[in-house]
Amino acid sequence: MIVEISIVPIGVGESLSQYVAKALKIIESKISNYKLTPMGTIFEIENFKELGKILDEIVDELIKNGVPRVYTVIKSDFRIKSTTMDYKVEKVKAILKFDK
Amino acid sequence: MIVEISIVPIGVGESLSQYVAKALKIIESKISNYKLTPMGTIFEIENFKELGKILDEIVDELIKNGVPRVYTVIKSDFRIKSTTMDYKVEKVKAILKFDK
Amino acid sequence: MIVEISIVPIGVGESLSQYVAKALKIIESKISNYKLTPMGTIFEIENFKELGKILDEIVDELIKNGVPRVYTVIKSDFRIKSTTMDYKVEKVKAILKFDK
Amino acid sequence: MIVEISIVPIGVGESLSQYVAKALKIIESKISNYKLTPMGTIFEIENFKELGKILDEIVDELIKNGVPRVYTVIKSDFRIKSTTMDYKVEKVKAILKFDK
Repeated sequence: MIVEISIVPIGVGESLSQYVAKALKIIESKISNYKLTPMGTIFEIENFKELGKILDEIVDELIKNGVPRVYTVIKSDFRIKSTTMDYKVEKVKAILKFDK
Repeated sequence: MIVEISIVPIGVGESLSQYVAKALKIIESKISNYKLTPMGTIFEIENFKELGKILDEIVDELIKNGVPRVYTVIKSDFRIKSTTMDYKVEKVKAILKFDK
Repeated sequence: MIVEISIVPIGVGESLSQYVAKALKIIESKISNYKLTPMGTIFEIENFKELGKILDEIVDELIKNGVPRVYTVIKSDFRIKSTTMDYKVEKVKAILKFDK
Repeated sequence: MIVEISIVPIGVGESLSQYVAKALKIIESKISNYKLTPMGTIFEIENFKELGKILDEIVDELIKNGVPRVYTVIKSDFRIKSTTMDYKVEKVKAILKFDK
């Protein structure tokens, strides 16, 4: 499945990029192919249990770095017919191009 | 932590309540205190790994019932200082009442 | 359509209920029937433009109260066949009861 | 502010890219700089009212194309101190590189 996670540390001021970088380092160590966007991080993963392990590790790391509260938003897209991150984007782009 | 999950079965028409009911039955069997809202289900859970196990079970159940694609939205609120679903709502209501 | 909004003020510490109360006061003044949940506020509204006006007012109010950054999550469910918040919940509950 | 929108048409089968393309064409006609990701579309916009107008137009277009139900997820990040989509990503990448 394809997932997008957005980690929002709360209680450590308004500049969050250093914490996002810490979260991303954990993702980088487990996921070879991820996309960092201005609003989250997107990657493919086997199932929710595997995703849960990564998210627990991220929360632990943020707590160790002084974050008292962590808000998270996750979107996931599971499909029996296997799909990839790149396929989803390319298909939409192909339709857009064809229609012009 | 407090989580809200929204399960959106795709590819089985526009009426989704029978699938939501199947997901809810799984939640009911694991979580004693949950809140069903018009836009999701809210409950307290230890960590993301435990949440992941429940979500994997829900996806499996929906697939078995003919759903080819499952879109999910999860929001979570983890706080070191322990909190509860009811406390969050009561505190906001108390402030609203006091301000009147 | 039915919408759920979650307002997350950033940069004002970890306790957010006083800000959520300010947002809710604005919603209360415009929307007669809303549901406050531990993870957001749910109500029915005509369209996204009307929702946008309310959200802009909430952001303005939070800024006036010293919030430097506002993170928001919105989920919406639009259906041609009109539906209500209560209908969605009741239908799922009815199926759950029937299945027992 | 920076927003990410995810449009999920319901009731038209499991393959959604043609509908996503229709939504994207509307975004393209109004927003010069947008990012299409595997899980949504990200762009900068003045306020929620302007975003609302675009979303209403997308919903109308999908209905005209036979979609009976539209589920939407929106995340937004408003900051007094102005920021851009590219700045957010570059800053995290810079921290990651520096830490290595």
